[in-house]
Amino acid sequence: MTKIVVIGGGAAGLKAAARARRRDEEAEITVIEAGEYPSMSRCGLPYYIEGLVHEIENLLQTTYGAVRTPEFFKRVKNIDVLTKTKAKRIDREKKVVEIERNGSSDELPYDYLVIATGSKPARPQIPGIDAEGVVHLHSAEDAEKIVEAWEDGAEEAVIIGGGLIGMECAEALSRLDMKVTMVEIMDHILPTLLDAEMAALVKAHLKENGVEVLTGYRVEEIVTDGEAVSGVKIGEKVMPAQLVLIATGVRPNVELAKSAGLEIGETGAIKVNKYLQTSDPSIYAGGDCVENIHILTGKPIYAPLGSTANKHGRVMGDNVTGGKSTFPGVIGTTIFKVFDFTVARTGLTEKEARQLGYDVITAIAPSPDRFHHYPGQKPIRVKIIADKSGKLLGAQAVGLGVVDKRIDVLATAIQMGATIDDVANLDLAYAPPFSMALDTVIVAANIARNKRDGLIESISAEELRKKIESDEDFIILDVRTDEEAEKNPLEDRRVIHIPLDRLRESVDKLPKDREIFTVCQVGARGYEAARFLIQKGFRAKMVEGGMAILGVLVSR
Amino acid sequence: MTKIVVIGGGAAGLKAAARARRRDEEAEITVIEAGEYPSMSRCGLPYYIEGLVHEIENLLQTTYGAVRTPEFFKRVKNIDVLTKTKAKRIDREKKVVEIERNGSSDELPYDYLVIATGSKPARPQIPGIDAEGVVHLHSAEDAEKIVEAWEDGAEEAVIIGGGLIGMECAEALSRLDMKVTMVEIMDHILPTLLDAEMAALVKAHLKENGVEVLTGYRVEEIVTDGEAVSGVKIGEKVMPAQLVLIATGVRPNVELAKSAGLEIGETGAIKVNKYLQTSDPSIYAGGDCVENIHILTGKPIYAPLGSTANKHGRVMGDNVTGGKSTFPGVIGTTIFKVFDFTVARTGLTEKEARQLGYDVITAIAPSPDRFHHYPGQKPIRVKIIADKSGKLLGAQAVGLGVVDKRIDVLATAIQMGATIDDVANLDLAYAPPFSMALDTVIVAANIARNKRDGLIESISAEELRKKIESDEDFIILDVRTDEEAEKNPLEDRRVIHIPLDRLRESVDKLPKDREIFTVCQVGARGYEAARFLIQKGFRAKMVEGGMAILGVLVSR
Ligand SMILES: Cc1cc2nc3c(=O)[nH]c(=O)nc-3n(C[C@H](O)[C@H](O)[C@H](O)COP(=O)(O)OP(=O)(O)OC[C@H]3O[C@@H](n4cnc5c(N)ncnc54)[C@H](O)[C@@H]3O)c2cc1C
Ligand SMILES: Cc1cc2nc3c(=O)[nH]c(=O)nc-3n(C[C@H](O)[C@H](O)[C@H](O)COP(=O)(O)OP(=O)(O)OC[C@H]3O[C@@H](n4cnc5c(N)ncnc54)[C@H](O)[C@@H]3O)c2cc1C
Ligand SMILES: CC(C)(COP(=O)(O)OP(=O)(O)OC[C@H]1O[C@@H](n2cnc3c(N)ncnc32)[C@H](O)[C@@H]1OP(=O)(O)O)[C@@H](O)C(=O)NCCC(=O)NCCS
Ligand SMILES: CC(C)(COP(=O)(O)OP(=O)(O)OC[C@H]1O[C@@H](n2cnc3c(N)ncnc32)[C@H](O)[C@@H]1OP(=O)(O)O)[C@@H](O)C(=O)NCCC(=O)NCCS
Ligand SMILES: [Ca+2]
Ligand SMILES: [Ca+2]
Repeated sequence: MTKIVVIGGGAAGLKAAARARRRDEEAEITVIEAGEYPSMSRCGLPYYIEGLVHEIENLLQTTYGAVRTPEFFKRVKNIDVLTKTKAKRIDREKKVVEIERNGSSDELPYDYLVIATGSKPARPQIPGIDAEGVVHLHSAEDAEKIVEAWEDGAEEAVIIGGGLIGMECAEALSRLDMKVTMVEIMDHILPTLLDAEMAALVKAHLKENGVEVLTGYRVEEIVTDGEAVSGVKIGEKVMPAQLVLIATGVRPNVELAKSAGLEIGETGAIKVNKYLQTSDPSIYAGGDCVENIHILTGKPIYAPLGSTANKHGRVMGDNVTGGKSTFPGVIGTTIFKVFDFTVARTGLTEKEARQLGYDVITAIAPSPDRFHHYPGQKPIRVKIIADKSGKLLGAQAVGLGVVDKRIDVLATAIQMGATIDDVANLDLAYAPPFSMALDTVIVAANIARNKRDGLIESISAEELRKKIESDEDFIILDVRTDEEAEKNPLEDRRVIHIPLDRLRESVDKLPKDREIFTVCQVGARGYEAARFLIQKGFRAKMVEGGMAILGVLVSR
Repeated sequence: MTKIVVIGGGAAGLKAAARARRRDEEAEITVIEAGEYPSMSRCGLPYYIEGLVHEIENLLQTTYGAVRTPEFFKRVKNIDVLTKTKAKRIDREKKVVEIERNGSSDELPYDYLVIATGSKPARPQIPGIDAEGVVHLHSAEDAEKIVEAWEDGAEEAVIIGGGLIGMECAEALSRLDMKVTMVEIMDHILPTLLDAEMAALVKAHLKENGVEVLTGYRVEEIVTDGEAVSGVKIGEKVMPAQLVLIATGVRPNVELAKSAGLEIGETGAIKVNKYLQTSDPSIYAGGDCVENIHILTGKPIYAPLGSTANKHGRVMGDNVTGGKSTFPGVIGTTIFKVFDFTVARTGLTEKEARQLGYDVITAIAPSPDRFHHYPGQKPIRVKIIADKSGKLLGAQAVGLGVVDKRIDVLATAIQMGATIDDVANLDLAYAPPFSMALDTVIVAANIARNKRDGLIESISAEELRKKIESDEDFIILDVRTDEEAEKNPLEDRRVIHIPLDRLRESVDKLPKDREIFTVCQVGARGYEAARFLIQKGFRAKMVEGGMAILGVLVSR
């Protein structure tokens, strides 16, 4: 009878245990959990704060309403879940885990050990960080603390860190009618998730929803009023705050593994092979405590996610019961909702791809998320990143419309090794309520193909913005309709406005000696105009993403 | 200066022309269109009937509001679009197209010819089919006719044909408050799109929305009241109807190509190679008038779609301007919305796969479309079909929730040659508003893996329904909660109800000599129960898709 011990009662640990039980009815399976709640969906915590999820207990429920208590695991799966029990030490020689429970110690012998100790919030070295009212959002207790602070009258919140959890909390706290300020040390929010121009779109949406966003600022100090926080010092200014959320990422819980002498990877997380086996063949590890291999780069990354933790758990459950399952790695797919925006990316950002030495092509396709006359259509902006060889490397998408579908399609394509030519010919499901006749991902692939094949050159909206601020000489040819140009003007002395349907008759007015940047609303007409001008001997480039991107950059 | 002539001003023809112009500013490009409106999005017609799209003109508009008239094509793209002009004959020797325009004839010489003549509605041999009030839905005129019939007081409609257009019209006419009956000759609706159990879910939704559905009936006669239709004879019964919609599919327009001696494929559509070249190297063809290669089978299929027509157009536009682009084929992806359901499939159905001789595994995963406690979650049912080797062959999805994403992901996976193991480890975008931690497609892949790996056997809901109607002896073990079983009971003398969390303590009550079919709401608990029982020496199989499927089948 195999003895399986699992340390950590989160997604990875309990999935491993549940899967192990389904494969082996005879094994003795014990899960050790330091906290009170096993099997809680942390990802639901922002929605609990916001009030969309009513009880913490909901985050422990199955789809049919059973609460995943230790009793549930015992009755349904014959798994012993020991809560409020801490694993103190792993003795690999004796193959036992030393545990502490109700103040007393014990030893659990194992044949196979699963380490699924998860992560903990990073704590930056900021004076005042221990003050009352300074919180993280990682556990149910953290969520309760935040709700209590609000109930106690906190009206102003500062969120330190412009990443995923910071975003979800910015929305949650705003919905509770708090005034929210977000501070990000890098020069744009979501620095590891999105490229600058895509992040700018998200920033604009945060602003529209009343969130103040400060980028490029280091928090100097958390100011207290005796015990409790009263503000946050940013540069010379103190932002008043009764609640400060530290959202600067998480770090893997590796103390146990480290002190047991297991190999730790260069990311600081536990190193595992494709079987999720640690440097000790009897010990597997998965979830937030391990690093993953990035499928595109072959390099380790730390990318802690609930989806991945569940996949890890299943692989470990197989392998501690005689299986030989493998986990292929990840491609960095991430998504979140913030106010009415969905924000997502997969694969490498343009910046990452360039740093890795790829010869990069990008394409930005802003479009409606369905047939443009179908009711309820909403805008999305999709960016793809490819190698000059055509290999798809990454994608980002943001907007009010359906973004998750496009990212999941592109994630699938990337993971399967697709080129932009493959994407352009995907047989995707088209009907007016679901996409344009050529889905936005197909359009994005075609734009990239046009660039790769030398049909068109482009200037990024960000480059053009910088040029506009310079006193260089060039022409911005605005080919939008009169109506569009009036409604949302692009004002600069170098702008010439000729709607696309008058370009052929007016082309002689344009000079051949200056660079011409063609711009429209989303990029398609700019492309068409540039193709025409190039063939007529002009030096024309299209503006990537048109006013849909440039308009946001120049107005910020 | 290359002379390019295009026959047909639909998606394929005009896309070819537009793309050709962008690649070659010098070419002379002429498009011949028999009708009045070039470039109309036929796919929007059901929504025009329903009133969601207000003007036919909307279906001719770009995203920025320009109407794609011949003048538009001339001014913007320098393309001559000759409307109300019919191509009568192709003289391949002389390389000219004979046209008729305003009653007089002319010849257009070409270097390259593009045939994009589209399709026409099939007209089954039904007595009375020429009566007033018997319509198709293919053109703007057809749509106007339908709206006029309704304005003239038609209250009852019979739709002949239970395919995509029939479905979209069933919704549109119902929304106009007409009483709709749908007649399908095969034994289930959507016979070429879905397997029987998935079609049953759609049928139930149609019924819920007041549409009467008659399957397995041939329409004997369309009964008239003098000129106009008054009813439809089905079996012995006459269904009263003031409007009859023939929706029995479309046939390719191949007369011109055929009389020019171009090769016609076994499907009856024009045969083209991967460059979309016909048997005459100067003549390309694409869109609804050609057949496609099914990527999975390598065989020709007739799959006329607007998305494909646009892709074809772009490839042809490349190849008539010196390019060498290829089209890889299709996998039969199709989608539509009907009332609150989205219905979609990609790849092969189970039936098709079996007919082709594949050793098939299927999996059905009913689930919420997002985290089950996130507001607005709605059910979806996803079925996948794989080969025993693991190769993914097809997928179907229906439901109130987000179905299009799952089908697009699976379409991408199929087209890229994915196995169920690949799908199970896709790095898809998870956050509570967008999916379960393991997306439904991943769960479906895991179910299929469990079957392939011999962990579980299943019985399809349809097989079980048949068994229930027999007097065989077996046990249906209902492992749902007491609450679930009371709310939605499964009544049969062979049902034993033991909730999953009482199974371990009650297992001795079950007989080892009879087959046990374990059932729950969606299948997960049925699977878990069966795994337990199998390991305990019982002969247990899970019911695929649980009551989510079986419940609909037994209640119909
Ligand atoms: C607010 C928030 C939002 C999130 N949103 C998303 C999202 O949208 N999408 C997504 O994919 N992911 C999201 N995540 C991340 C996701 O929750 C984690 O990736 C996932 O919970 C990791 O699972 P795990 O099992 O590895 O670790 P955990 O769930 O952290 O479980 C580890 C467990 O181990 C226990 N433990 C640790 N050390 C010991 C010890 N020595 N002895 C005993 N027990 C121990 C801990 O108490 C803990 O319960 C979010 C996380 C948070 C906090
Ligand atoms: C109601 C409806 C709903 C649909 N919904 C969808 C959907 O949701 N998704 C999807 O992908 N597809 C859908 N389709 C199918 C889609 O509309 C077609 O696949 C697409 O229009 C085909 O484009 P095409 O250019 O090949 O042909 P067409 O658009 O039919 O264009 C062919 C043109 O050629 C002209 N022509 C023919 N012969 C001659 C001649 N001898 N001389 C001159 N001109 C000629 C015709 O007048 C016609 O305008 C739908 C179709 C209909 C009718
Ligand atoms: C729930 C949890 C305990 C895992 O337990 P589990 O029994 O594996 O539960 P799941 O629902 O994930 O899996 C159900 C099983 O039924 C199978 N299944 C699901 N639907 C099915 C269906 N319709 N038919 C047949 N089998 C089905 C699944 O494939 C899986 O089996 P497998 O892993 O052996 O292939 C663990 O994932 C957990 O603690 N989760 C909560 C926390 C969390 O997910 N956090 C991260 C996100 S915030
Ligand atoms: C519209 C139609 C005339 C084609 O004309 P088109 O000029 O190719 O128009 P599209 O909008 O499809 O394509 C725009 C071009 O701009 C490109 N583009 C789109 N967005 C862009 C952006 N943001 N930046 C740069 N380029 C962009 C596209 O890639 C395409 O160029 P390419 O084909 O050379 O790669 C033809 O498709 C048609 O008649 N459609 C209506 C009918 C229909 O689609 N029916 C089927 C569905 S019901
Ligand atoms: Ca939210
Ligand atoms: Ca509709």
